[in-house]
Amino acid sequence: MSNISFHQDIATLKEQLAKLSTGYSAAFILCDENTETHCLPLVHEALTNAFVIRVRSGEAHKTLQSCDTIWFALTHRNADRRALLINLGGGVICDMGGFAASCYKRGIDFVHVPTTLLAMVDASVGGKTGVDFDNYKNQIGLFREAAAVLICPAFLTTLDGRQLRSGMAEVIKHYLIADEAAFHAVEQSEKLTYDLALIEKAVRIKSHFTQADPDEQNIRKALNYGHTIGHALESHRLSTDAPLLHGEAIAIGMAVEALIAQHLDMLPEEDAGRVLTVLRRYFDLPVLSTEEISAIIALSAQDKKNAGATRRMALITGIGSYAVDVAVGEEQVREACIWYNNGIS
Amino acid sequence: MSNISFHQDIATLKEQLAKLSTGYSAAFILCDENTETHCLPLVHEALTNAFVIRVRSGEAHKTLQSCDTIWFALTHRNADRRALLINLGGGVICDMGGFAASCYKRGIDFVHVPTTLLAMVDASVGGKTGVDFDNYKNQIGLFREAAAVLICPAFLTTLDGRQLRSGMAEVIKHYLIADEAAFHAVEQSEKLTYDLALIEKAVRIKSHFTQADPDEQNIRKALNYGHTIGHALESHRLSTDAPLLHGEAIAIGMAVEALIAQHLDMLPEEDAGRVLTVLRRYFDLPVLSTEEISAIIALSAQDKKNAGATRRMALITGIGSYAVDVAVGEEQVREACIWYNNGIS
Repeated sequence: MSNISFHQDIATLKEQLAKLSTGYSAAFILCDENTETHCLPLVHEALTNAFVIRVRSGEAHKTLQSCDTIWFALTHRNADRRALLINLGGGVICDMGGFAASCYKRGIDFVHVPTTLLAMVDASVGGKTGVDFDNYKNQIGLFREAAAVLICPAFLTTLDGRQLRSGMAEVIKHYLIADEAAFHAVEQSEKLTYDLALIEKAVRIKSHFTQADPDEQNIRKALNYGHTIGHALESHRLSTDAPLLHGEAIAIGMAVEALIAQHLDMLPEEDAGRVLTVLRRYFDLPVLSTEEISAIIALSAQDKKNAGATRRMALITGIGSYAVDVAVGEEQVREACIWYNNGIS
Repeated sequence: MSNISFHQDIATLKEQLAKLSTGYSAAFILCDENTETHCLPLVHEALTNAFVIRVRSGEAHKTLQSCDTIWFALTHRNADRRALLINLGGGVICDMGGFAASCYKRGIDFVHVPTTLLAMVDASVGGKTGVDFDNYKNQIGLFREAAAVLICPAFLTTLDGRQLRSGMAEVIKHYLIADEAAFHAVEQSEKLTYDLALIEKAVRIKSHFTQADPDEQNIRKALNYGHTIGHALESHRLSTDAPLLHGEAIAIGMAVEALIAQHLDMLPEEDAGRVLTVLRRYFDLPVLSTEEISAIIALSAQDKKNAGATRRMALITGIGSYAVDVAVGEEQVREACIWYNNGIS
């Protein structure tokens, strides 16, 4: 956690940003059109000498083509190896900016200033960087830690409800694999406040797993709960006119994977029910079409976490406990998707 | 040097390759059309289950587009994180294959089997990977060590004289920065044999510098002697109909940079003369046109080794000694280019 700092308000974040960037030959701020409009004004006076690099927002632009844009901008501004890239945005900006910085002139430092709940509790922590490729999520990327991660809930006021709920999926996931009491509190609460305490608790869980196992050899894999099915559906929907936000896809993934765990007799039916009940409070879980189920089966066979042709999933075995590297066959995925459709209809 | 092995003949190299690849879920061999024809047959029986990935040969294809080809091939063959990429070729194949492997699914192992003298004594050792971008050499890349480097002079019989001489530039450079006796032996020899002893001596010098300073913070920079001017000219010539081989460009770079060192009173005129005399035995050093001198000045201002706008060069201060981070202005580069033109005509 040594590189992560929490800021109750924007003033201390700005102070730290200004202090940080003095150690570099030049600072560049990576934005998309949304964060340039809504977030950059909150911090710009701390970074008046920085150059702004703009890429287009959204998962569809988390590509090597957008990296080209970043690399051209750095090159044409003569950024040297002591330059700094500040990623001001959500998961796409953090993942892609981290990757682009790590490859520019064999690596410059980067700092994450996550502006979405999702990026605060997930993308900005743990050193995974990358871009999508050939319809596969994060197919091209690196493990590389940010020089600093600055977390401040002030940015959350720039988000709409859909984006906030999307972030809540990863919060729920962190609680589900590691903290039954926190999950129970979510079950009981009438209305959640997305405050620094909620964020910090989720970040500490994520950070515990990533620090214990940075290269994802064992326990870090637990963080992939919901992500085998979730990523597959997210990838598939990317090429349609109804793309999902990452958290929306992961919510569906957690629901289906809870049912896979139940199907494998690893998770009590009652616990699977609790998972679905909480997820339905935050997400309009859609029925999966036959085409979507086929796509999930095909794309999940290509997941990075697999060993050869066999799907390997991280599943929960109770509220607050998990198992990793569980072998899951095509029929079990199909069956769980059907249970899921029945469960939500 | 623990990851480098030297093989007097191809039989022990094949044994080691076969043994190595059994530890992986799948092996892929990266070739260009030349190494597929001339080198793959020498090792193929050790790797009968491996998939061959072909890219086009030459520096002009050391690009992100060629990486796309590699990444598509790995993806479509379902390569998982325990797959191995074997880079069978010269510097382009080793640098680019190392980069592509390091980014695929956040990093798979790679092995270098260098087939040119240049790649044996330079590209395959020390963990620099990368591709060219926007006319700048290795602008996008990473520091990442190969899992193994297998060196065998048997591949040199597949090279023509121009390619062998190109490799000799880096051998001479290694001797110039670190081994006066070895350079003296080159001066005295009637005819060199490109044998395992010559290669191993050069590899040990390179490895000494890269192991002492993997991230190029201090002494490793000595290996960049000849490369500020050399890379600039190589980049410029890439966009003409007379591209240079890397070693040819570095030979010219070493000649010009020796004259810069002399101009700065850092290198005795006599030593600069010895450098030019040996280089002229191996290379037809060309006169630099006014356009080329302007291009060298402009492109060298963008070198990765620079601090901001000031060129920083590694120069020799005698035969077998060096200085790094020497600030060099535009006028000194221009002057040295003119001295060089006068010296070779």
